[in-house]
Amino acid sequence: MKKLLIGALFLATILCGSNPAFCAERDTLAQVATIDALLGGLYDGVATVGSLKDLGDLGVGTFDALDGEMVVLDGRIYRVASDGRASVVPDGETTPFAAVTFFHPDREMELPAGTDLKSFQALVESSVPSSNLFYAFRLEGRFRTVRTRSVPRQEKPYRPLVEVVKNQSVFDFRDVEGTVVGFYCPPFVKGINVPGYHLHFLTADRTAGGHVLGFTIGKATLKIDTLSRFVLQLPETKAFAGADLRQDRKEELERVEK
Amino acid sequence: MKKLLIGALFLATILCGSNPAFCAERDTLAQVATIDALLGGLYDGVATVGSLKDLGDLGVGTFDALDGEMVVLDGRIYRVASDGRASVVPDGETTPFAAVTFFHPDREMELPAGTDLKSFQALVESSVPSSNLFYAFRLEGRFRTVRTRSVPRQEKPYRPLVEVVKNQSVFDFRDVEGTVVGFYCPPFVKGINVPGYHLHFLTADRTAGGHVLGFTIGKATLKIDTLSRFVLQLPETKAFAGADLRQDRKEELERVEK
Repeated sequence: MKKLLIGALFLATILCGSNPAFCAERDTLAQVATIDALLGGLYDGVATVGSLKDLGDLGVGTFDALDGEMVVLDGRIYRVASDGRASVVPDGETTPFAAVTFFHPDREMELPAGTDLKSFQALVESSVPSSNLFYAFRLEGRFRTVRTRSVPRQEKPYRPLVEVVKNQSVFDFRDVEGTVVGFYCPPFVKGINVPGYHLHFLTADRTAGGHVLGFTIGKATLKIDTLSRFVLQLPETKAFAGADLRQDRKEELERVEK
Repeated sequence: MKKLLIGALFLATILCGSNPAFCAERDTLAQVATIDALLGGLYDGVATVGSLKDLGDLGVGTFDALDGEMVVLDGRIYRVASDGRASVVPDGETTPFAAVTFFHPDREMELPAGTDLKSFQALVESSVPSSNLFYAFRLEGRFRTVRTRSVPRQEKPYRPLVEVVKNQSVFDFRDVEGTVVGFYCPPFVKGINVPGYHLHFLTADRTAGGHVLGFTIGKATLKIDTLSRFVLQLPETKAFAGADLRQDRKEELERVEK
């Protein structure tokens, strides 16, 4: 089976130039489910963590029952639980929402000491060609501060995410080495993914992290991968089928992200 | 090269069960560019018509310089020009916006005589599992009436689509055999594709058609393919990079579609 897979990947690589249908693994943001479904409380896992590895080696997400923040880094999938501790997650666990890419950076820059989340965003915007494409980030080095959060595992009946985050745990790291990963998404993905920036953090020793609320850089390198292709896999579950996805959840999203 | 392609497709078919990354050709709506970019007047072609054939054999779209309505049927790509006449388009021509799928219907039904566009939509909604997935349609048979439109080739500087359609040509077919193809898209694709229904028509003799404004069925069979995967290819052009895609173009879209 593995030989066949390698054979197919090899053929896909050869064919990529002439046939874009086979290029899915490169410059592609691949996503499971939609952010508005998650905001609405659809926390049941719909895809295995193992299957995510076929779609990317870097990314963000969460787990079945909203059990922590997902960090995908170097092809390994970590959970940052509500106590702030990170651990590798077995392939059989599931996710209700995740976004990943096979990270092949096309830009690299050193970020000056003192750069915070806002100036990071301004630096990205001044160096990328357009706000209408997707970008994946890997920001690695020493941080003066990182503020993260994680969310506690939920019990049914699930409450909307905006209610859950009222009980989020917030963690303050000082003088810490680690990696921030995540994405910029263009404004037109509203309702599907997070327009703007969505970043998660993992310490260099892979023991802690979370959803990024803020940071100040000590010394760090930013790598950016421009993504012009977006693949969305919708859940074929009853919960997703019956969800009301007509609401505008922009304000809820803003409250959840901060 | 063709042998390699067949080999890759064969492997993709074998692997599909265990590895969803290789299943892109099935149950997938594949799209080039976004509807809001088109509404804003980005009419330069960004992908060849030939490359669309790698992504699907049924669909809708338009051509470089907004030169007519695109109908993709049985793997052939037709232009319905502004005089209402249809012709096969060479692979080298380009498109600024198109959506296609490899059509594998999972539902089939006879539609009663007298069914119009509105009752067609009601019938679809009562027979599919969810308004949160994508559906592709092939509606084939005899129509008492079909009303279509097409748009004239534009010159630069391009005007927004809502201005162009003020000069659209409208065609009324009576007692005609033909095929309606197109898609239903869920509400959360707003800004990216057309939420709701987007249908194009081609006569059985493949000589005429257009963007569907209305119809009344004589006797027709509807085939539906449920699509749970969406692939969006964004143009890496200067025009797309610089476009303002933050505007809400809902009202413009409604005026353009009617």
